[in-house]
Amino acid sequence: MKQSIMFKNKPLIKSWASVAGKKESEGPLGAYFDVTTDDDMFSGKNWEQAESRMQTEAVKKAISKSGVGTNDIGGIVAGDLLGQLMATSFGISQLQFPFLGVFGACSTMGESIAVASMIVSAGFSDNVIAMTSSHFATAEKQFRFPLGYGNQRPLSATTTVTGSGAVVISSKDDNSNETPIFIEGITIGKIEDYGVKDSNNMGAAMAPAAYSVIMANLKENEFVASDYDCIITGDLGVVGGKILNDMLLHSGVDITERYMDCGVEIYNLNSQDAHSGGSGCGCSAITLCGLILGRLRRGEWKKVLFVPTGALLSTVSLHEGNTIPAIAHAIILKGGK
Amino acid sequence: MKQSIMFKNKPLIKSWASVAGKKESEGPLGAYFDVTTDDDMFSGKNWEQAESRMQTEAVKKAISKSGVGTNDIGGIVAGDLLGQLMATSFGISQLQFPFLGVFGACSTMGESIAVASMIVSAGFSDNVIAMTSSHFATAEKQFRFPLGYGNQRPLSATTTVTGSGAVVISSKDDNSNETPIFIEGITIGKIEDYGVKDSNNMGAAMAPAAYSVIMANLKENEFVASDYDCIITGDLGVVGGKILNDMLLHSGVDITERYMDCGVEIYNLNSQDAHSGGSGCGCSAITLCGLILGRLRRGEWKKVLFVPTGALLSTVSLHEGNTIPAIAHAIILKGGK
Repeated sequence: MKQSIMFKNKPLIKSWASVAGKKESEGPLGAYFDVTTDDDMFSGKNWEQAESRMQTEAVKKAISKSGVGTNDIGGIVAGDLLGQLMATSFGISQLQFPFLGVFGACSTMGESIAVASMIVSAGFSDNVIAMTSSHFATAEKQFRFPLGYGNQRPLSATTTVTGSGAVVISSKDDNSNETPIFIEGITIGKIEDYGVKDSNNMGAAMAPAAYSVIMANLKENEFVASDYDCIITGDLGVVGGKILNDMLLHSGVDITERYMDCGVEIYNLNSQDAHSGGSGCGCSAITLCGLILGRLRRGEWKKVLFVPTGALLSTVSLHEGNTIPAIAHAIILKGGK
Repeated sequence: MKQSIMFKNKPLIKSWASVAGKKESEGPLGAYFDVTTDDDMFSGKNWEQAESRMQTEAVKKAISKSGVGTNDIGGIVAGDLLGQLMATSFGISQLQFPFLGVFGACSTMGESIAVASMIVSAGFSDNVIAMTSSHFATAEKQFRFPLGYGNQRPLSATTTVTGSGAVVISSKDDNSNETPIFIEGITIGKIEDYGVKDSNNMGAAMAPAAYSVIMANLKENEFVASDYDCIITGDLGVVGGKILNDMLLHSGVDITERYMDCGVEIYNLNSQDAHSGGSGCGCSAITLCGLILGRLRRGEWKKVLFVPTGALLSTVSLHEGNTIPAIAHAIILKGGK
């Protein structure tokens, strides 16, 4: 039961785009995003519509940057945090692409890239979009409390990122002068459940899933941590990141020198009141489509492991006294041939 | 932007299993299900746990019927109707397979088979499971009213099926004496939204999605309706099925002689008080894993188009005054070489 697939035909990430909310735009990565805003409603009628609008914008921007004609897009693999993928249903319906809806909580960018890259590598389509989003207000409303309550959250809680990221995954090099970015392989995660029940400490719930998929990626491919310039988790935050590194060290794997968490990078944790860091599908998505792919393109990194992490939290299961299962998927990204 | 993929390496449906609730077991298809019950709680503590237990049972049964060792299962593609795929997170976590969570509402069996068959056809794995479920009580609680309210529903409303179906999709013929069942191709659906806002008439919301994907399947592959022994929608029910046939006739395509809807087949609509018919991910899944695959195996049908239909309904979007977008995916199943 091997979790890793190394591609013979390596798909490329041809283009990418990110749309970020106000707080994210004001954070340390603000300059990297394609679209930033002062209006987290994105001129919409409600928060959910705002999230859908970010998606539409991110997808359109990614397509226009790719140079691929809309008619040559074979489909879109996408999802979000909301029940029944509400943001996505409305965010992409007007685009009229063949659509596969995926859910992996905050690991969704990993899952959508995994599925889209398999489709492209297999030759079923030449261009497939992977996309996801999250919005602070839609997520708080769904998983915690409506914003109007002014509810306080503990320091272990993370802050759901308002943002959407989209990538165009293609089979062909466009012969540009820019460094191509290849998806060398993927490692599909398994559900890990260590019994954590605290929805305000999802970093702890997700760390075992990140541990499990990183270990599988290294072992199955006979890699060592130093094969990567950086190993990047999605949204473990300060608390979960420490647990992950402790777990890996316990297994003799030291990634401390090359570890980064999108949730820690996205806000200034000293001044932005983001608690343990950013989270949500959008967190790893816009960090990928802002910071990470840019560094690979500019040659600052050669090879990274991108590991979006997801807490499969449902308010129903939580209120029924259940644990928070988690999953993470790993994507091997390599700049240059 | 072609929606259809015809497989060069055609994956097989090696085995399948269905678990059905009490009402479904008492219906016309009762004799076809692998596991039937008098207890819709499946000895669980709550409805959600019952749904998860059906999933575990369906997957285990499908694996044991396949003759494939658990270690040779490459992964599972699965989902359900509940927010954040709660039934699936708990239903499969113990099985420890690489997992891709998918959501297409009641079209999920189509989507999970589409993704799993692409993975197997491409040679990324030799055996992948596609699975889904629904449960009347978990769905009513989430989308309509808790059962205890005794709420009345109009005749256009469908009844969510309690059941789970799982298939093992494999790359190799097992050289048995039985007729092999091949997945010849798939047609991935686009979101269709004709503005229907009545959550008690999801057949009407979904009919355009079924129409769109059936038309794409026929046109793109230069097929005619009579190439199929049967064209089978998931859960349009009596109301939606009539709309679909009208729409197709309007486009010059007559499938009336070879049309079936899983939601209409699964209950005795005269005596079982199921209104417009069955619905839910489980509806098409257990009809596939009970009636349809059996008929193909026995040679009663040679080739069918299986079209699970999904209403991308969210209670949040509905309460915000939104429409019900819908999607359907089509799977070409062929018995014999």
